[in-house]
Amino acid sequence: MKKAKVCISLKAGLLDAQGKTIKSALESLGFKGVREVRVGKYLEIDLDQSFAKPSLRREVERMCHKLLANPVIERYHITLDDNGR
Amino acid sequence: MKKAKVCISLKAGLLDAQGKTIKSALESLGFKGVREVRVGKYLEIDLDQSFAKPSLRREVERMCHKLLANPVIERYHITLDDNGR
Repeated sequence: MKKAKVCISLKAGLLDAQGKTIKSALESLGFKGVREVRVGKYLEIDLDQSFAKPSLRREVERMCHKLLANPVIERYHITLDDNGR
Repeated sequence: MKKAKVCISLKAGLLDAQGKTIKSALESLGFKGVREVRVGKYLEIDLDQSFAKPSLRREVERMCHKLLANPVIERYHITLDDNGR
């Protein structure tokens, strides 16, 4: 089995209200030195062995474009795990 | 500035309804070979330079335990970026 890990986050410059809230919460819990927090989604996708390495990455990129991320406001980073790398 | 990236996801064996929905959506879009999708949170935390390497990881682990994750049902993975590594 092959595993793809996808990290999706808001592009730089866009307001991240959830991140600001978490930053405030961390500060009120006494954590010092936090400059910024940005929140996004994390997905682990298990795929059949049948995909070859380059086509696997392309396929996951297509998934991101079509469903998982909004490429207008979000950026994503794909990591192929273990034997999928 | 130092950056910590935190990936938080449900522990194995716990029902991930959102992941199941995404899997169905991918299949209905024509993507084949998807066995499982698991969804979690992704956080990027920018921190002051003042933290030393070992204390930085400890600090982020404390944040996860106190606020960011629920250690009972969630696992998390911390990556310290660039000069924070």
